[in-house]
Amino acid sequence: MDPEFATLDRWWRAANYLSVGQIYLMDNPLLREPLREEHVKPRLLGHWGTTPGLNFVYAHLNRAIMARQQRMIFVTGPGHGGPGVVASSYLEGTYSEVYPNVGLDERGLHRLFTQFSFPGGIPSHAAPETPGSIHEGGELGYALSHAYGAAFDNPDLVVAAVVGDGEAETGPLATSWHSTKFVDPRRDGAVLPVLHLNGYKIANPTVLARIPEEELTSLMRGYGHAPYVVSGSDPAQMHADFSGALASCLDEIADIQGEARASSAPVPRRPWPMIVLRSPKGWTGPKEVDGLKVEGYWRSHQVPFANARSDKGHRKVLEEWLRSYDPDDLFDQTGAPAADVAALHPEGDLRMSASPRANGGLLLRDLRMPDFRDYAVTVDKPGTGSAEATRVLGHFLRDVMAENMETFRLFSPDENSSNRLQDVMEVTDRTWNAEVLEYDDHLAPDGRIMEILSEHTCQGWLEGYLLTGRHGLFSCYEAFIHLVDSMFNQHAKWLESTRRIPWRRPVASLNYLLTSHVWRQDHNGFSHQDPGFIDHVVNKKATVVRVYLPPDANTLLSVGDHCLRTKHYVNVIVAGKQPAVQYLSMEDAIVHCTKGVGIWDWASNDADGEPDVVMACAGDVPTMETLAAVQLLREELPDLRVRVVNVVDLMRLQPEKEHSHGLSDADFDALFTRDRPVIFAYHGYPALIHRLTYRRTNHVNIHVRGYKEEGTTTTPFDMTVLNEVDRFHLAMDVIDRVPRLHATSGAARERFKNALIRHRQYVRTVGEDLPEIREWEWTGA
Amino acid sequence: MDPEFATLDRWWRAANYLSVGQIYLMDNPLLREPLREEHVKPRLLGHWGTTPGLNFVYAHLNRAIMARQQRMIFVTGPGHGGPGVVASSYLEGTYSEVYPNVGLDERGLHRLFTQFSFPGGIPSHAAPETPGSIHEGGELGYALSHAYGAAFDNPDLVVAAVVGDGEAETGPLATSWHSTKFVDPRRDGAVLPVLHLNGYKIANPTVLARIPEEELTSLMRGYGHAPYVVSGSDPAQMHADFSGALASCLDEIADIQGEARASSAPVPRRPWPMIVLRSPKGWTGPKEVDGLKVEGYWRSHQVPFANARSDKGHRKVLEEWLRSYDPDDLFDQTGAPAADVAALHPEGDLRMSASPRANGGLLLRDLRMPDFRDYAVTVDKPGTGSAEATRVLGHFLRDVMAENMETFRLFSPDENSSNRLQDVMEVTDRTWNAEVLEYDDHLAPDGRIMEILSEHTCQGWLEGYLLTGRHGLFSCYEAFIHLVDSMFNQHAKWLESTRRIPWRRPVASLNYLLTSHVWRQDHNGFSHQDPGFIDHVVNKKATVVRVYLPPDANTLLSVGDHCLRTKHYVNVIVAGKQPAVQYLSMEDAIVHCTKGVGIWDWASNDADGEPDVVMACAGDVPTMETLAAVQLLREELPDLRVRVVNVVDLMRLQPEKEHSHGLSDADFDALFTRDRPVIFAYHGYPALIHRLTYRRTNHVNIHVRGYKEEGTTTTPFDMTVLNEVDRFHLAMDVIDRVPRLHATSGAARERFKNALIRHRQYVRTVGEDLPEIREWEWTGA
Repeated sequence: MDPEFATLDRWWRAANYLSVGQIYLMDNPLLREPLREEHVKPRLLGHWGTTPGLNFVYAHLNRAIMARQQRMIFVTGPGHGGPGVVASSYLEGTYSEVYPNVGLDERGLHRLFTQFSFPGGIPSHAAPETPGSIHEGGELGYALSHAYGAAFDNPDLVVAAVVGDGEAETGPLATSWHSTKFVDPRRDGAVLPVLHLNGYKIANPTVLARIPEEELTSLMRGYGHAPYVVSGSDPAQMHADFSGALASCLDEIADIQGEARASSAPVPRRPWPMIVLRSPKGWTGPKEVDGLKVEGYWRSHQVPFANARSDKGHRKVLEEWLRSYDPDDLFDQTGAPAADVAALHPEGDLRMSASPRANGGLLLRDLRMPDFRDYAVTVDKPGTGSAEATRVLGHFLRDVMAENMETFRLFSPDENSSNRLQDVMEVTDRTWNAEVLEYDDHLAPDGRIMEILSEHTCQGWLEGYLLTGRHGLFSCYEAFIHLVDSMFNQHAKWLESTRRIPWRRPVASLNYLLTSHVWRQDHNGFSHQDPGFIDHVVNKKATVVRVYLPPDANTLLSVGDHCLRTKHYVNVIVAGKQPAVQYLSMEDAIVHCTKGVGIWDWASNDADGEPDVVMACAGDVPTMETLAAVQLLREELPDLRVRVVNVVDLMRLQPEKEHSHGLSDADFDALFTRDRPVIFAYHGYPALIHRLTYRRTNHVNIHVRGYKEEGTTTTPFDMTVLNEVDRFHLAMDVIDRVPRLHATSGAARERFKNALIRHRQYVRTVGEDLPEIREWEWTGA
Repeated sequence: MDPEFATLDRWWRAANYLSVGQIYLMDNPLLREPLREEHVKPRLLGHWGTTPGLNFVYAHLNRAIMARQQRMIFVTGPGHGGPGVVASSYLEGTYSEVYPNVGLDERGLHRLFTQFSFPGGIPSHAAPETPGSIHEGGELGYALSHAYGAAFDNPDLVVAAVVGDGEAETGPLATSWHSTKFVDPRRDGAVLPVLHLNGYKIANPTVLARIPEEELTSLMRGYGHAPYVVSGSDPAQMHADFSGALASCLDEIADIQGEARASSAPVPRRPWPMIVLRSPKGWTGPKEVDGLKVEGYWRSHQVPFANARSDKGHRKVLEEWLRSYDPDDLFDQTGAPAADVAALHPEGDLRMSASPRANGGLLLRDLRMPDFRDYAVTVDKPGTGSAEATRVLGHFLRDVMAENMETFRLFSPDENSSNRLQDVMEVTDRTWNAEVLEYDDHLAPDGRIMEILSEHTCQGWLEGYLLTGRHGLFSCYEAFIHLVDSMFNQHAKWLESTRRIPWRRPVASLNYLLTSHVWRQDHNGFSHQDPGFIDHVVNKKATVVRVYLPPDANTLLSVGDHCLRTKHYVNVIVAGKQPAVQYLSMEDAIVHCTKGVGIWDWASNDADGEPDVVMACAGDVPTMETLAAVQLLREELPDLRVRVVNVVDLMRLQPEKEHSHGLSDADFDALFTRDRPVIFAYHGYPALIHRLTYRRTNHVNIHVRGYKEEGTTTTPFDMTVLNEVDRFHLAMDVIDRVPRLHATSGAARERFKNALIRHRQYVRTVGEDLPEIREWEWTGA
């Protein structure tokens, strides 16, 4: 072997040894005695196949970092290769710094091995517990979008992202290659993808490993890359080839960035370098076990052979495998890595495992915030006027953007303007580094509004951006946010896990603005109607999720301001974008949002005692329908005492012991009474309100209306009628639920019913809503 | 214009005219009088931008179909181009056949226009209401996976799939190009993708339209295609170019298939032809409106100008635009399409809008089913023995496969074997048309087990396969099925919509087998633990969703057999793959599954009257823990009367008026009592059980245990302990909930608590579960 690579190779062997040790060993970590049954873990849980490749790449990156003093972080697409990244961070000393119990000696090694994938120990993946990780890779597909998120606005950073060839088959990964058209060589860092073709997934070959090389490189060029292919299994040759390719890549990155940064004019987009690394799955592991192929085959994916504890033959294979790395040569008498190996890593923050970029909370600074009250809509009288709530928020976001031009971005799947946030374009552009035509507007490489028609990529970019210490907001059509249900799961779990890890610092919250919501998808129809993301979100830990339904512009401003200031949550905001009546002045909105739920006195007439009925509402359209119903009831049944309760912060409905925002039972009862009927008009699927309130005293009397999967292409009001959450149905519900009205209010009920019939006739003939509904305003009473 | 294309061009103009008419007109459909205000719809809802391109492609396909008598169907990736596909199916006569009210005359035209995107009319997208559609395209990304699903096992079919350039940015679409490695030219039909680059999405340019052509064609070649590029805006030239490209594509498809079909040996994979069509967005529409660019720009995406009713200038633009197609030339005096235009479509079933393949229920035949009872596991005594439930199902599926080798497929993201369905490989292989190495096993172009590491592609293929009249099953890790939450939404909505459309026939159910479930993700850890897909599913209409939790192998066989026989549902089956104790003989399993929920007498001791407590359970692991708890209680508190209720069919818990499977209140009360405490151990998030049962008499006494987002890498039993659904917690719950035990059972409770402490110590030291838990069997009492 070229002496240049001799120590590097020893580091690699050490990392591989440590990886196998983690997967298999309970004791005898340095093999200072023959391997016995009791040295092997009783349950073997971990993934070997991808690990030697990860270790190989990591070692070479370290060499390059040292040579160039280049800041880098490492994104482990095949995150199940946890043993590898743990091993590397241990060799770098970082592991012992954050976990002093796992020291660089035999005792530390013993603990390193036993804790791995062991009850009370650490997970088997590149989990939050792993220093240097911003990417668990438990669910595959997001390595590149996370990597780009990390690279944005980090001009001195190179993010090395290993993409597994299994992962490369996922949709989100397949499109995230196109991030090449959204990265600015002048202002952003770079991503260096390493597509690791080890040929197999769990049980099948991988697609990209089994197409002709020309087809593969054609694909990569099509994605905007200039690929280097490094292929083989002989370590000496592979060290030479990979280090050469890596040096070329880093030179090219520097050249692309240098050219862009030297010029004040835009420079044409150039292909970014990337590496295709073709190496055997389970490289350096046993070639065969029990006569069956293991190295270079899917059998090495997880634990290559399972009976090393009880089966003598398997134990012999394991011992030979471990000794093939020559531990006596790699570790000194105390069990510490040999001095030359231990020296082969960058210092301090330059270690990828110790980069503050990979523990973003360390770098997080609060946003500089304009005063949201300055953007208020004037509301002289509740239930009047007209404003597009998200457009008003857009004014505010424009100035948030202007004051935070290096740490704040907006993300949207081609819906930023459709969602009415276009005013932000007064201070920045849409990010775009592909071709621009003369009549295009607001496209620029350094734009900060990130639009690609891929919710997955938007979410992945944003996650990477947040996890490296910055801020952002994702606006999306409500129905299609379900595309990232699973990504949300992973991020929420990451937040929950890191809450429990002292050295991880809180990051900025992930803020969703869901608009173009179910009640305003009358034009796109049934396929665009689904308010269930909220249900999905509340299945996650109450410690990390919050849901807000501001009913108008000023409440949206207040909620938006709050969410942008919070840390370590997922905030879901559902708000309207269509012109709508406004309810609260800024002052009232602040009070209401601070309480999260409250009685609207101006719409209630129960001041002199208990109400006959509580009309509760959450969401802009249900709120309007509720108030319209109250108005109808006021006209028809003036003696009826109605209390209107509006809910902004949905988590207030939960018991206080289940969510920190939860109302006490006494407070809940004070609002919703202990025994009066509650007609609750809710934005989403009705079951959620029952779920949140089922432990409350008055639950049995809560009657919820919401979306029940009735919808088509129709008018806005007709959407509410189809789902029986319209004013007439709500008013009839009141009559049906307040016993003393049963006998006396038949005529009123009949008039509500007739109004519905009149509506249906009108809308089917004229094609739009009745004028009195289109132009409805609260008249009080 | 080349006379060869003159009539074709007239067809195209007619389709465009009909499209604009649908978007804009209420009346005066043939412009036989000047356009007045009242002729224009008051609300304009529809998408113009993509429509002329769709009409162009459709017309050319028709020409080719007529020339070649080639069976084709049309998948409209940009499904929002509904006006186009409706117009084409109207010109083909199909529309009037299925909707006789919309005839081929002026009155029919009037109705065609007014109904579009109008309350009580039809949706604006290529919805289920559209003849010939198997793909709504409301949510973008699935055009190609649906197209391939339709092509599998349809050797004489070519599926033309228009991929929008916005859609092409989605992850699912980006990876679905790789379907080229999963289609068999011998046995399957072909997919002809037409990547339609019209340059813009809602408000942004598209990525693929703004990369150099060389990069684009390189990308397509990398995906396994040989691209033809047709680019321009001059109709005459475009007709010539496109028809030439299309002819070449169909020739090449025939050649590829011919070569494969002529040989008995496998032939090397060849690039499949595809077309890149670059044409202006809103082609043939107004070039400018109010001085702003419209044609060839994002402004033409939806309604190019909005005030055609009230604004005279806009109305003039509209009238000129409509007259530019020369309606007098295109329609005769009665309003029917001119005879030569009307003749320009294939006959009968060859019309893409009338293809039975696009109304799969017409072709659906029941599966030939082996007798599932023949695969039963012998269970001599309940709660003993050991079997891997999904492996047992795999035996059965092997023979289902063997008997249905042209109409049944399995789909899985590289998990078919991991999910223990590998026995199916005895009769078929994994589908694979990429490179095969000598040591690969069970890979073949005509394999029927479809594995790609993309849940999106699996789901899309399966949907396409079902919608064209065939059967299938999708097995997936439970946590990651959330990746297709949104696809499930769209499919469930499709099923619900088609239930209401008389000419649509029911298709086979979409069957999910979710295994590697939350309680057995102790090895992969927290990121792999999420049982929430069930919650997501039950938000959809009760008419189309069913959820089953068979607790052992024989119940899984019974449920699996049932689901494969059903039509037009989404069936979710959650089952275990690990060795586990068995409860029911085949005979008992059939009875139990038929009832869906029932008392397990052999585990209950309340025969002489009302129980003190009901121990309910749903799911394999909760069932085992419940029985183990009963056993503990039997030992400690032999006088306690315990009733064990097991739930297989989760929908039985709902009121009968909410789901057709729902138990009557009387039946529910008979099982769960009216007032006794119920300790319910549930597989998923506890809230769902409350949601399903909150209207039941005894709801207030139902105490649910389930997954509460506590998990990590640990042992199987420890997973239940972390979430308090283990035997000891359940037994303590009983003591806490049965008042008469409070005073007397302190010592027993203490022993359960101590057992938990002993477990935690053992598991953290030894790394596996206590032997008595690993080897637990029901001993009765």
